[in-house]
Amino acid sequence: MKRLEIIGLSDLGEVVKGASIANLLCQACERAQISLLKNDVLVVAHKIVSKAEGQILRLDSVQPSDRAVELAQKLGKDPSLLEIILRESRRIIRTGGGTIIVETHHGFICANAGVDLSNVGPGYVALLPRDPDRSARKIRREIEQLTGIAPAVIISDSFGRPWRMGTVDVAVGVSGLKPVKDERGKTDRYGYELKASVSAIADEMASAAELVMGKTDGVPVAIVRGYEIENEEGSARELVRPEATDLFRQF
Amino acid sequence: MKRLEIIGLSDLGEVVKGASIANLLCQACERAQISLLKNDVLVVAHKIVSKAEGQILRLDSVQPSDRAVELAQKLGKDPSLLEIILRESRRIIRTGGGTIIVETHHGFICANAGVDLSNVGPGYVALLPRDPDRSARKIRREIEQLTGIAPAVIISDSFGRPWRMGTVDVAVGVSGLKPVKDERGKTDRYGYELKASVSAIADEMASAAELVMGKTDGVPVAIVRGYEIENEEGSARELVRPEATDLFRQF
Repeated sequence: MKRLEIIGLSDLGEVVKGASIANLLCQACERAQISLLKNDVLVVAHKIVSKAEGQILRLDSVQPSDRAVELAQKLGKDPSLLEIILRESRRIIRTGGGTIIVETHHGFICANAGVDLSNVGPGYVALLPRDPDRSARKIRREIEQLTGIAPAVIISDSFGRPWRMGTVDVAVGVSGLKPVKDERGKTDRYGYELKASVSAIADEMASAAELVMGKTDGVPVAIVRGYEIENEEGSARELVRPEATDLFRQF
Repeated sequence: MKRLEIIGLSDLGEVVKGASIANLLCQACERAQISLLKNDVLVVAHKIVSKAEGQILRLDSVQPSDRAVELAQKLGKDPSLLEIILRESRRIIRTGGGTIIVETHHGFICANAGVDLSNVGPGYVALLPRDPDRSARKIRREIEQLTGIAPAVIISDSFGRPWRMGTVDVAVGVSGLKPVKDERGKTDRYGYELKASVSAIADEMASAAELVMGKTDGVPVAIVRGYEIENEEGSARELVRPEATDLFRQF
């Protein structure tokens, strides 16, 4: 019988700039009497990674450009917030209804370039980590140094979707895991060759983790235990659809 | 410590038209020595629901219209398949690169109107259930009659996404569960009032379940155990973004 466990880790304490997420995480595991296993996948909310990496900005530390002021007015948002969003963006995909959807410098298409006002304190915003794959690799390597075990690591964020209500958590950084599981070419139980079976398993794990992490519960890490991962290095960039094959990029 | 379990149920046997999914599911639980709990959420792959409901068509049973033939040629697909996709659709959203994205009669925007060639046998296709919420309610009610326990039920399918590679499983039918968790108005640990925190938890549960279900593993049901659901009735239609608030409907 296939069985997964999703275990939330709380009480990591306040994460300050320069903190080692790996250290805090291992200490939280110890307090919870959990030993990490080789096949574990650690899903880490990007917010604490951004804090540790100093990717936190004071809103009043930026000078809004004319373009930011204009967009802010149109969208009913803070001009400084708009300025930060624009700096984090490669291009604007769409605006309307108080929402701005952009392509970030990483290539992610999401609202507000992932710039987030919650859980950082009044007057501050959290940016996405500059290179979330690198952040994931660093956490993985440091955990290995501390414990001898190198679990896979996913950095997660909550993304909205076209056509569907609500956000789901997805992977913005990955290490120690291929984020897509490609079953094309395998046959089903009737001998039919699967043609479209590529599952975004890292996104599914991030979503599974969100069910224990929530938004207000102080659970910034979850362990996904029991999935047979192939121990290959991967990148969250594999989850970004190349523009040439994307039916929803040309506007 | 928050902890979820995702338990895959296999060996339901071949599902034929008229079969009771609830019966097969309860028998599989018995064989696996699992007692259902009140807060369990059962994620059921739509494919077996479609089989039980007779939502299976022979490709050669339909006569392709001129429009279907033309689109099939353009997309390199079978004209009969296109005819079935068109019949299942309210309108075409986009075509290209061998892909057709439509809005189904239910309001879901997805590839091929959810019409699927895998795991149904050669020459056949599976349609989505006609009313997946009703299917979920029926399974839930029958399980309650059999066991005295009324777990929540999600009917799932694998949907592709704009901008991101791979599919993730989402909820197309729901019963016994509010599919979105609205935390707007709650405050974070700094007193910031959350403005955009609506999580599509039914989609996240469907995705979590896919991790044990896979595409070729013969695991059509998974139990999500340990989530504190509010015992209210819900509908997968709550997951469909109203056209007026959707930035990606106007083409």
